[in-house]
Amino acid sequence: MKTTALIMAGGRGERFWPRSRMNLPKQFLNLTDSDRTMIQSTVDRILKLADPADIFIATNEAYRTLVQEQLPEIPPENILCEPTARNTAPCIGWGAAAVRKRYGDAIMLVLPSDHQVMQPHLFRSVLRNAMQVAEETDALVTLGISPTAPDTGYGYIQYDPETPSGFSGTFRVQRFVEKPDLDTARKYLASGEYLWNSGMFIWKASSILREMEEHLPENYALLTEIEQAIGGPEEREVLKAKFSQMRSISIDYGVMERARNVYVLPASFGWDDVGSWLALERMNAADDQGNVIRGDVVKVGSSRCIVQGGEKIIAMVGLEDTIIVDTKDALLVCAKDSAGEIKKVLEVLRAVNRTELL
Amino acid sequence: MKTTALIMAGGRGERFWPRSRMNLPKQFLNLTDSDRTMIQSTVDRILKLADPADIFIATNEAYRTLVQEQLPEIPPENILCEPTARNTAPCIGWGAAAVRKRYGDAIMLVLPSDHQVMQPHLFRSVLRNAMQVAEETDALVTLGISPTAPDTGYGYIQYDPETPSGFSGTFRVQRFVEKPDLDTARKYLASGEYLWNSGMFIWKASSILREMEEHLPENYALLTEIEQAIGGPEEREVLKAKFSQMRSISIDYGVMERARNVYVLPASFGWDDVGSWLALERMNAADDQGNVIRGDVVKVGSSRCIVQGGEKIIAMVGLEDTIIVDTKDALLVCAKDSAGEIKKVLEVLRAVNRTELL
Repeated sequence: MKTTALIMAGGRGERFWPRSRMNLPKQFLNLTDSDRTMIQSTVDRILKLADPADIFIATNEAYRTLVQEQLPEIPPENILCEPTARNTAPCIGWGAAAVRKRYGDAIMLVLPSDHQVMQPHLFRSVLRNAMQVAEETDALVTLGISPTAPDTGYGYIQYDPETPSGFSGTFRVQRFVEKPDLDTARKYLASGEYLWNSGMFIWKASSILREMEEHLPENYALLTEIEQAIGGPEEREVLKAKFSQMRSISIDYGVMERARNVYVLPASFGWDDVGSWLALERMNAADDQGNVIRGDVVKVGSSRCIVQGGEKIIAMVGLEDTIIVDTKDALLVCAKDSAGEIKKVLEVLRAVNRTELL
Repeated sequence: MKTTALIMAGGRGERFWPRSRMNLPKQFLNLTDSDRTMIQSTVDRILKLADPADIFIATNEAYRTLVQEQLPEIPPENILCEPTARNTAPCIGWGAAAVRKRYGDAIMLVLPSDHQVMQPHLFRSVLRNAMQVAEETDALVTLGISPTAPDTGYGYIQYDPETPSGFSGTFRVQRFVEKPDLDTARKYLASGEYLWNSGMFIWKASSILREMEEHLPENYALLTEIEQAIGGPEEREVLKAKFSQMRSISIDYGVMERARNVYVLPASFGWDDVGSWLALERMNAADDQGNVIRGDVVKVGSSRCIVQGGEKIIAMVGLEDTIIVDTKDALLVCAKDSAGEIKKVLEVLRAVNRTELL
């Protein structure tokens, strides 16, 4: 069966300001020592599984040019620009409808465009297992990351390790849970029955569309109208009219939590959701003082800092646990334990209408 | 008697990097909320005591243009550019010789160009007292700052508060002492007999030249040759030849510590020697969180920081006790308690020959 992919690239990535901007979000940035951006690396990682002609990019009109520039190997008609943001369920539904229209049916890898994978060989090995399960069972399959800490920044997946699915390394999902508080996260970690929700899915287009028809019937009806119009003269108009009528809901809440036939593959392939500047410490090599530095930097007695230089030299003196990000028109200096507050800077800029800096 | 002034403006001010540079040292910067640079403020402060035509600026050739640009009211022939750096005694000797040549004799105010005075009225009042003492006694007079802390960054002047000089508020100096260690500084402060050495002097040209003749006779002989050549066709050649032959020595060590007739006026006029970025906290108003901020800054939960912005916006998030100085080609981020280490950045830049940043 044909393997296709749907890469989700509509996010804004405010937590990487000032490098990420409204017109250049995180997935289009290079945050590692590599010379490839996050979305380029995402495509690179699956080229041994799917042909570029079979990879779809879900994004919005504002990023169409960026996608074309960064991923010239992807056919323009595979760039699905949502007319309005409607969360992940309509977006994935459209992708599945596009796959059904073109291929009849096919395996779909649904992947975020802004995650990091340190061991791509392992990642592909897990995906191949998942693809086999998806093809043979009609199930919805997701990847669960073996947790290494009681992290409150992720959703969790509870599974039953004692009841295997019949497929090697694959388990039936008991439930999806939202981001927990710290005490709950600690209990999840201690129980051994919880995995981090990676937001990566593997299924046949027919499987996810069948579940949408059952659990989101109004959306499904609109999707069939969109599907019929694909390639026709009224494609754009129909898309614009019907997509905006869809109920805005996440795939987790709208489908995954309601479907019966959901499997998870617990996996470890050096995954990181790159949720804030702090991720750079996990993704990049540090110097002897624990600093992760990129750019023209002179360092005097500084440790555990994260520095992304711009065009000018940065001298850091006696700093600890500080993030410095210099860009052409904005400079961020942030205590590491306040990285979650960066969005407040954007709130201030928005309030005073300095949109050129957002 | 005519009042003249000699403003010492040859320093390099490395501790204010990256705003201060080899070609733009501290005295030519504006570090306060004022729109005047430090040397401009220094001249402004004494205009009620001395005419611009009677104010001399001691500097070096590299800063001649800066002096002319910032102080257009000073006659070009009053800008004394040392051919080689020879510490303060030869520099002041040359100034005194120039005064004697032009005026026969006159009061000289010898003032650093890079100090801050918060109460200029009080400052002038103290200077007027000192001028009277200098004129009537032929003494060397200096200003001693009433210490407010056991500061190890200043030299100290010991005086005998029980033996007044006969002039109101003026005391005989017992000795000059170098920068002490913290224990010694604490003892000095507790004794009530020590003042901070301000480096500001008031005397007649004839008084200081007489002391130089006695304590630095070789230098004095060279000074008389320079003095004779002033205004003549060989002025430059003689200066170049003789000045470099002079013994390099400070006025404190070469003259003040050896002279018998030295008085000090204990004073408080909001003085600061502006020795590092930390001085900005004393010189400028702080916001409610104790931050002293200049420039386009968005602040989230930050306190006790010193920020000097450049052309771009600076977002500070969760920072404490941090110095940020942004300029066109260099950015400094420095922990306040490491401000003394900024010179190490310059050592690194010098070692790798990046002279454009010095």
